[in-house]
Amino acid sequence: MPHASLSSDGLVVSLTVDQQTTRFHAIWLRDNALDEATKSSSNGQRLIALRDIDSTTYISHAQVSAEALQVTFMPEQKTVSFPLHWLAAHAYDKPQTSSKGWLPHSQSLWDSSLMGQLPVADFDAVSSSPAALQTWLADIARFGFAKLNGGPIKAGALTQVVDLFGHLRETNYGRIFEVRVEEKPTNLAFTGLALQAHTDNPYRDPVPTIQVLYCLESSAPGGDNVLVDGFNAARQLQQLNPHGFDLLSRYCARFE
Amino acid sequence: MPHASLSSDGLVVSLTVDQQTTRFHAIWLRDNALDEATKSSSNGQRLIALRDIDSTTYISHAQVSAEALQVTFMPEQKTVSFPLHWLAAHAYDKPQTSSKGWLPHSQSLWDSSLMGQLPVADFDAVSSSPAALQTWLADIARFGFAKLNGGPIKAGALTQVVDLFGHLRETNYGRIFEVRVEEKPTNLAFTGLALQAHTDNPYRDPVPTIQVLYCLESSAPGGDNVLVDGFNAARQLQQLNPHGFDLLSRYCARFE
Repeated sequence: MPHASLSSDGLVVSLTVDQQTTRFHAIWLRDNALDEATKSSSNGQRLIALRDIDSTTYISHAQVSAEALQVTFMPEQKTVSFPLHWLAAHAYDKPQTSSKGWLPHSQSLWDSSLMGQLPVADFDAVSSSPAALQTWLADIARFGFAKLNGGPIKAGALTQVVDLFGHLRETNYGRIFEVRVEEKPTNLAFTGLALQAHTDNPYRDPVPTIQVLYCLESSAPGGDNVLVDGFNAARQLQQLNPHGFDLLSRYCARFE
Repeated sequence: MPHASLSSDGLVVSLTVDQQTTRFHAIWLRDNALDEATKSSSNGQRLIALRDIDSTTYISHAQVSAEALQVTFMPEQKTVSFPLHWLAAHAYDKPQTSSKGWLPHSQSLWDSSLMGQLPVADFDAVSSSPAALQTWLADIARFGFAKLNGGPIKAGALTQVVDLFGHLRETNYGRIFEVRVEEKPTNLAFTGLALQAHTDNPYRDPVPTIQVLYCLESSAPGGDNVLVDGFNAARQLQQLNPHGFDLLSRYCARFE
């Protein structure tokens, strides 16, 4: 049975569900109260500011009933109910990973062994099936990239790819950047030279989130696309040279 | 007279100009060499990768002549010249501010005493005078905000303001967000309620950089706009409650 216990000063409730105990603080609960006077019932937005909460707020009574935690705030004498599933979703009393170089579990590191199983999807499939789109986007979130085959071959078609999940972020280059070989190149991207591994627009603030490279036509044979997992590179540096990794993670580097 | 001295292992050059000494490392100098084989003369982009540089690189000879530092890299036996003004602009051997809550010198903290001298510009002036535009943008950089008066009164006119300095960043709300009082508000912004001090779109990644609030029409008397300098708030917290500030600056807070 879920149950709640209250600290003697009324400042902390310890909620135990399935033998897991999570703490919630009186001020936090009051600030996040779900009643209509605290949160707009029509749009979920908060109607009070922190300054509206008495700084001496404490809880005089806490109990679990009907899958909810009920607490009474003093000196307001206000009783508010929090569904247990809401508390579970918003619990903040859990171990935090703050070590340098941590990765969320949802992220996969990779190297060239990924070649045999590249994350790839089909344009028509992701355009028509929300499930296929979700799988493709989940691959991007997990690996940092994913291929997309079979898109329309016409100028600006990449904007249709962006429309699948977000919005174009314009830059000084305009809405899109045409990569093509030019006679008098002002950018290495306009030459036939092989480019080394690089990050585009690292000097931009904010830096790009997702970048879409869209091939309309390849008029010459050969040429490889090279992808590098920067997280894996960082992890390898951490293992090979912990001191170097520590230095790089503690000091801000300016772009140059 | 500017002069250079070389460490006995050839890994570091110390350059003294006007009694200021700055160190430059052999690998860094080699990586940043300005010759045509290292950097494209037409677009300034780098033509080599770090892996192209011998890891045993050192400098066998360094001297200043004609306002430039000339160094010879071994084992390549390659001599490269760096203008002193370029080195001064790219020097990295200087004290770094890494204390919590540091502010660049270009930033001013402010409070309500700024009321008498609000940073303000005129739309026609900044549209026609690069100097006026620069002053207005510098105010935004310095204070975090600036007013603009006299803009055109027509729907979407705020995009003309954005065109003065950058690009619209589209969101799920579209290119712009119309704030108006509605009968069935889905957002507090559509009500006549006073909004507390808040940050818009803090849940967005990346968060907005500059936000443009553009008033076309105010159909009711009264109503105040309230601005808060978050940097000043943080600075005050640091003074009033160093422990709390330290906690907040060391732990990642997720948006909720």
